[in-house]
Amino acid sequence: MDAPVRVRYAETDAQGVVYHANYVIWFEVGRNEFCEAAGYPYVRMESEGAFITVVEVGARYRRAAKFGDTVLVRTRLAAQRSRGCRFEYEILLPSGDLAVEGFTEHLFLDPAGKPCAMPRAVRVAFDAFLGSP
Amino acid sequence: MDAPVRVRYAETDAQGVVYHANYVIWFEVGRNEFCEAAGYPYVRMESEGAFITVVEVGARYRRAAKFGDTVLVRTRLAAQRSRGCRFEYEILLPSGDLAVEGFTEHLFLDPAGKPCAMPRAVRVAFDAFLGSP
Amino acid sequence: MDAPVRVRYAETDAQGVVYHANYVIWFEVGRNEFCEAAGYPYVRMESEGAFITVVEVGARYRRAAKFGDTVLVRTRLAAQRSRGCRFEYEILLPSGDLAVEGFTEHLFLDPAGKPCAMPRAVRVAFDAFLGSP
Amino acid sequence: MDAPVRVRYAETDAQGVVYHANYVIWFEVGRNEFCEAAGYPYVRMESEGAFITVVEVGARYRRAAKFGDTVLVRTRLAAQRSRGCRFEYEILLPSGDLAVEGFTEHLFLDPAGKPCAMPRAVRVAFDAFLGSP
Repeated sequence: MDAPVRVRYAETDAQGVVYHANYVIWFEVGRNEFCEAAGYPYVRMESEGAFITVVEVGARYRRAAKFGDTVLVRTRLAAQRSRGCRFEYEILLPSGDLAVEGFTEHLFLDPAGKPCAMPRAVRVAFDAFLGSP
Repeated sequence: MDAPVRVRYAETDAQGVVYHANYVIWFEVGRNEFCEAAGYPYVRMESEGAFITVVEVGARYRRAAKFGDTVLVRTRLAAQRSRGCRFEYEILLPSGDLAVEGFTEHLFLDPAGKPCAMPRAVRVAFDAFLGSP
Repeated sequence: MDAPVRVRYAETDAQGVVYHANYVIWFEVGRNEFCEAAGYPYVRMESEGAFITVVEVGARYRRAAKFGDTVLVRTRLAAQRSRGCRFEYEILLPSGDLAVEGFTEHLFLDPAGKPCAMPRAVRVAFDAFLGSP
Repeated sequence: MDAPVRVRYAETDAQGVVYHANYVIWFEVGRNEFCEAAGYPYVRMESEGAFITVVEVGARYRRAAKFGDTVLVRTRLAAQRSRGCRFEYEILLPSGDLAVEGFTEHLFLDPAGKPCAMPRAVRVAFDAFLGSP
């Protein structure tokens, strides 16, 4: 699942490139586009009482993106567990070179903020999406 | 009410100075410090069911702050109205020069998101704070 | 010139809606899309030695955008002056209702950071774009 | 090295807690305070031609910070290498409970953006600081 992101001036820093924490926000953009493409937008999960929390994030920075670039955030669902899941990301420069690679680990929470099982309907939607050609 | 803010690298942009929208966030820092100093931290207002919303913001940019600067956010309560209030701000560079001046206009909201009267206890606290030497 | 912006979770705050300073960043998105559409991407201006600085910003908040919304940032060039220009913005909710309206005033700077005339080529591009049907 | 950080409303999200990428920005705050305390503010490194870049970041989220909290960013220099270094962080809630733990790996760059040796003066300053009681 590839999502284009156009770099905002707000996202650059005084070294003239994108500030490192902003790529972590682009991971979120990729994740949201993944859920949308899988037919289960995150806003729908929340409306049905399932909240996703981030329990771990990791990123390796290879090359810097700059203002003017439209990068591609490539997102894949790397693991589904009983109560959570893992997404992996590659952020690609316009040249096709890898800018950043990373992952996020998630847990599902109920409205009270307690970890809960991944909703069955979400799993079905993700499975159908991943199984589709 | 003066609040020091140390510039974060995250707040700079590719022109080597602080990105303009971040001063608006520093207005929030000044406002929170004002409420805290007045004995009515904003978190207490929310816990008592009074939410402040921003209905207007304005900022004029004079000189740019840079990474390494500790700026001073000078906040004053410029007006109290039946259902809202206005704060005015000056952000000063370490040299004492004015970086940015601006204002925010606010309305009080009840937990349902409807405009409501400024809580009496907040008004009393602000009045007492402003009347104090 | 209308630019769609999908709300990021990162852009929301604890009141459940978009944090007010983030609309100012969306003004930047609208401005960049305007320059791009006019055939003069801002990154090209910078590469030719013309830097745009923000000297004033104003925003009035009418209705809040939420996560899940794709808003429209409507940008128009409201004034061109010898050394600067003014953009005006409307940010529209998916319902078509106005979320935020605002403006930014700009000066052109040379590579030394001194105000300078708006580059003639930029003016020609903007005029041609605005004159186009 | 402990640096207090007061949570800004801007840093919260619609789940009512601090958005996960903002803790990565607080790592930067901790790192800057460390360099400052060691007598070598990062702004001085840059003025002497040494730029620090982030090559990897990792964070594990344990408990969420909220608006109203003043958290403590505890930073330690975990490794010094010929051309880089590693910082590790713990972010503590007002209760003393761990909110987030993480690390950043860094390389030193010269003004041309090429990896270079960690400046001797920086190493001496860090060693003296760490060796101090």
